[in-house]
Order: sequence, then C-alpha cells, then structure tokens
Amino acid sequence: MGRLTALVLGSAAGGGFPQWNCRCPTCRLAWAGDARVRPRTQASLAVTADAENWVLINASPDLPQQVRQTKPLHPRGEARGSPIKAVLLTGAEIDQVAGLLSLREREPFLLCATAVTLAALAENVMFGVLAADVVRRKAVVPAAPLVFPGGLQAQLFTVPGKVPLYLEGAEAESATETATNVGVELYAGGARMVYIPGAAGVTAAMKARMKEADVVFFDGTLFRDDEMITTGTGAKTGRRMGHIPIGGDGGSLAALQGISGRRIYVHINNTNPVLIVGSPERAHVERNGWEIAEDGMEIAL
Amino acid sequence: MGRLTALVLGSAAGGGFPQWNCRCPTCRLAWAGDARVRPRTQASLAVTADAENWVLINASPDLPQQVRQTKPLHPRGEARGSPIKAVLLTGAEIDQVAGLLSLREREPFLLCATAVTLAALAENVMFGVLAADVVRRKAVVPAAPLVFPGGLQAQLFTVPGKVPLYLEGAEAESATETATNVGVELYAGGARMVYIPGAAGVTAAMKARMKEADVVFFDGTLFRDDEMITTGTGAKTGRRMGHIPIGGDGGSLAALQGISGRRIYVHINNTNPVLIVGSPERAHVERNGWEIAEDGMEIAL
Repeated sequence: MGRLTALVLGSAAGGGFPQWNCRCPTCRLAWAGDARVRPRTQASLAVTADAENWVLINASPDLPQQVRQTKPLHPRGEARGSPIKAVLLTGAEIDQVAGLLSLREREPFLLCATAVTLAALAENVMFGVLAADVVRRKAVVPAAPLVFPGGLQAQLFTVPGKVPLYLEGAEAESATETATNVGVELYAGGARMVYIPGAAGVTAAMKARMKEADVVFFDGTLFRDDEMITTGTGAKTGRRMGHIPIGGDGGSLAALQGISGRRIYVHINNTNPVLIVGSPERAHVERNGWEIAEDGMEIAL
Repeated sequence: MGRLTALVLGSAAGGGFPQWNCRCPTCRLAWAGDARVRPRTQASLAVTADAENWVLINASPDLPQQVRQTKPLHPRGEARGSPIKAVLLTGAEIDQVAGLLSLREREPFLLCATAVTLAALAENVMFGVLAADVVRRKAVVPAAPLVFPGGLQAQLFTVPGKVPLYLEGAEAESATETATNVGVELYAGGARMVYIPGAAGVTAAMKARMKEADVVFFDGTLFRDDEMITTGTGAKTGRRMGHIPIGGDGGSLAALQGISGRRIYVHINNTNPVLIVGSPERAHVERNGWEIAEDGMEIAL
C-alpha cells in the first residue's frame, strides 16, 4: 500500500518517433527498423499509489495505442469502467491534450490543470465530448496539494516555458514562468517523483525540488539548441520552442548537476541523437548519470 | 497507372475495438485475446490511383498508429515529406477528424470537406496547428468533381445523418440529409468505389450510386438498433446516433438488396456481434454477400 509506481506510456516529444513525415537521420534508422533505436510514442506518464487507481500525466495523441498496450489500464469488472481515475495536464500543447478526445464515451474521471490550461481546452468545442456532468474539471493552483483516488498526492509548480503553439501571437515569449507550463511533483508512501516534460530553463526553486526527489523526469527534447535547424527539420531553436537543450553551456545536463536521485530524460524529439544506443551523445548523457526514457519503462518506489 | 487501390487503415466505429472503458461481451473477448475477434482501430481509408500519392478518407484518433503500421504511407526520400497528399472528411465527428492533430509539423497537404465541416473545425483553435499557409482548406460542394494528385477522382454526396455529438443542441436531428454528413465516391481507371461510414438511412439516390460501384463500404456500426441499450453500454438507439442498423426490417441489409458489387461493412461498433467470427449475426451478414472490414484490408481494382 502506498507504493508510488509510474509507467512511461510514451517518451517522445510532439510527433513521436519516428515522426510521420520525417526522414532525419534518427527517423531513418527507426523507419528501417535499426536495432540501435526503439520507436517511441508521445510523452505521457501513468502513476498510481495503490496499483489500482491510475492518474495520467498528460494525454498524448497516442493515448489510444498506449492504453491498449498497457494492461494495468484496461477496464476490469463486468460493465463499463476504467482504472484511469484522473488526468493531470502540465500544459495545453497538442501532445499534452489531444488524447483527451479518446477518453470520451461518458466515463467519469477528474480532469486537473491550471485555469489557463482548462481555458485553452474550453476554447475548443470538441472537448465538449467530455461532458461536464461526467468529466469534472478542477482548476489547480500551483503549490496547492492534490489527493487522488488510491492515495496518490501531487503538486503542480511553475516552470519556464511558453504558450501552446496554436495560441502564439506574433511575439512568442519563450521563457516566461507562468501557469501555462507546469511541472508535477508526485508523492506516496514517503517516495517522491518529479515530472517536467517541458522546460525552457532551470530555476533555483525547480532544482531544489528535484534535489529532494527519488526520481526526476526532465525535458530531453533536443540535445543541441540548433538541432532542428542543422537537421533541416525546422527553423526554430529549442529555446524558442520552450525547451532547454540537454548539452552545451547552459544545457540541462550542466544546470542539473548535483542532483543525486535517479534521473531520466523524457519528451525526446525525433532528431535527438540520444535516441541512438551507442551514439556519443547517448554515452555522454549516461556518463553523467542520466537515463533515456523508453515506452513501457516502469518505476516502482 | 490509374489503378484504384484502397487500404482499410481502421474499421471500427468511434472508440475502436476493444474500447478503452468497455467490457461488453464483444470487448471482453478482445481484451482476453480470443482468436474469434480481431482488434480494430477507428475507421479511416487510404486511397490511391498511382500507388504513390495517397488520400485519406477521414483522420481518426488512431491515425498515428495507423500510419506507423502502413508502409505505403511512410515518408520517402531524403528530408521531410509524406505520400499523404490530401485528407477528405465525411463529417466532423471526433472519430473522423481528431487524427488531423497528428498531421501537424508543417507538412503541406490539401484538406477537403464541406463548408459546414470545415467551419466545425475552425471553431476549435487547436486545428490552427495545421497552419493555413501550409495546409490548404478546400470547401467542397456535394456533386462537385474533385481530382487529387496521382489522378484519383472523387465526389461527395449527401447522406442522411446528424451533426457531430459535440455540436448537438437539445433537439438532435437524426435523419436529416445535409452537408454535415456525406459519403464519397472514388474513381480511377474506370473503377468505382463508394465509402459511406455513417448513414442514418438509405435514399434512392444513394442506392443507385452503390449499384454502379465495384466496391461499396457501408456503415456497419450496429447490428441491432437497440444494441447499445441491451448491452448496457449506452442509452441511445443506433438511429438516434445517426446509424441505420444492419439487421431487421428497415436495416441496411434489407435496404441494400440488389447491389451486386463487392460490399463491405465498415465503422463497426465494439458491441456489434458481427465482429465475432462464427457468430449467427456474422454468418447472416456473410450469407447475404457482405464482408466485415478488417484493419489492413487491401482492395485493388
């Protein structure tokens, strides 16, 4: 009882790996079935404190496939129902919310997010398929304590980031610390886990929180800030997209030195060479004590 | 050249089979891995006239998985790109459009639908990820001729149906024939295919069109009109949901007698006993000359 357990439902950044329209060097390996890379669906974490009641952190577009592949999330009993009791969102990007559209069918669960994230959803009438009388929305203020069915506790905290792409105005802010982009701290039975799938930077408060955690999942979108540009897959830097790179001066590997718990990069973009087992970048990350998340990874504390 | 080919990317109704929260008798077989049933993703068809340029008919929430599983839809060449050149929508229900959110990443394609369907999408700011300068929207009037890259031709036609669930008012119409719900006729090289994944009834015009087709895909959501009610999975009849049942007086099997081409039920709900090989309902359908669509089915004319 009270054992904090997390399942990595998906470990890739938006678009997944390989990405439907991409032939970058890493995607090419994946399309060819090369054994050095493993395909990954888009980032989502399932967490429980009692192995019965589960909370999803974000609902990626790959959620239908992720649920089918994950036995603990299958329905039990005689009629309709689901072990998924709540979904907690860290933002309103497509890769964080589109899977909610696959949790329709009049199944009650609790949908938790900051007010600004819930408002972004409400601007899309389609999310009305999660009928308000069935799926209760709960606006959560960062730092407020949350308790879920099964005893899982959580707390949101602000993280530097940006508004979802589809809400960007002409001048996108890339490093503001507001409730549009948050991290989650999860705890049960004395164990602590921190999940930060998107961060434009590392603040002192974030680092202090990560130092006290048994396990840290952190934004591993890009290895290099200009990776999308040099691979010819995009025109934006990682920081412009709200993601601090792993490597280099000011990268997360440097910024997060001194954290001693288990630490795992997640939300990994299809261009990121850490996806390739045996690459210099993967070796560099591992030498520094970090792991690369894979779909299906289980962490039991 | 000019050979009409269709791949069934998904053959299930909204929610897929098995459905994430369902333990109806048919879903239970699927969860248990029973050999009499095959899991199915949500309905979508990929069509081509030249085996290179593909058009998707509807974009289901399962599209990411469907694309990964379908080699002809994988990107080719050296950089970004996709053989998917267009998406044609028959309506704006979640199971027809949510997959569009997985076709982001600044990849050009043509998005075709009736004006009312495009307007329903536009009410959801999230679909702005398909940037207007990259993904061109084309409002299509029923009966207007369409020509796609690779030579595929198509025509939309009205079908009795209803507005998407999330747009329903207090009084939902269930059998109006408007541009909110359409069928598609596809042709190339002298071959004809008709695809009608949702229909509340069969009009004389629809039947005449189906009689001239080499292959007909038709709405096989429910076998019995009260199937959702008797299985305890819902409170609505099939007709109330905009779907004529297969069996019984006034069912599609009776209404479509006299059609001589290859005929295939698609968009099959998880409660439908025709999903079970060897069931009396499956035998009845097959005795009447109909097939039950499966994911991965290929039709080359």
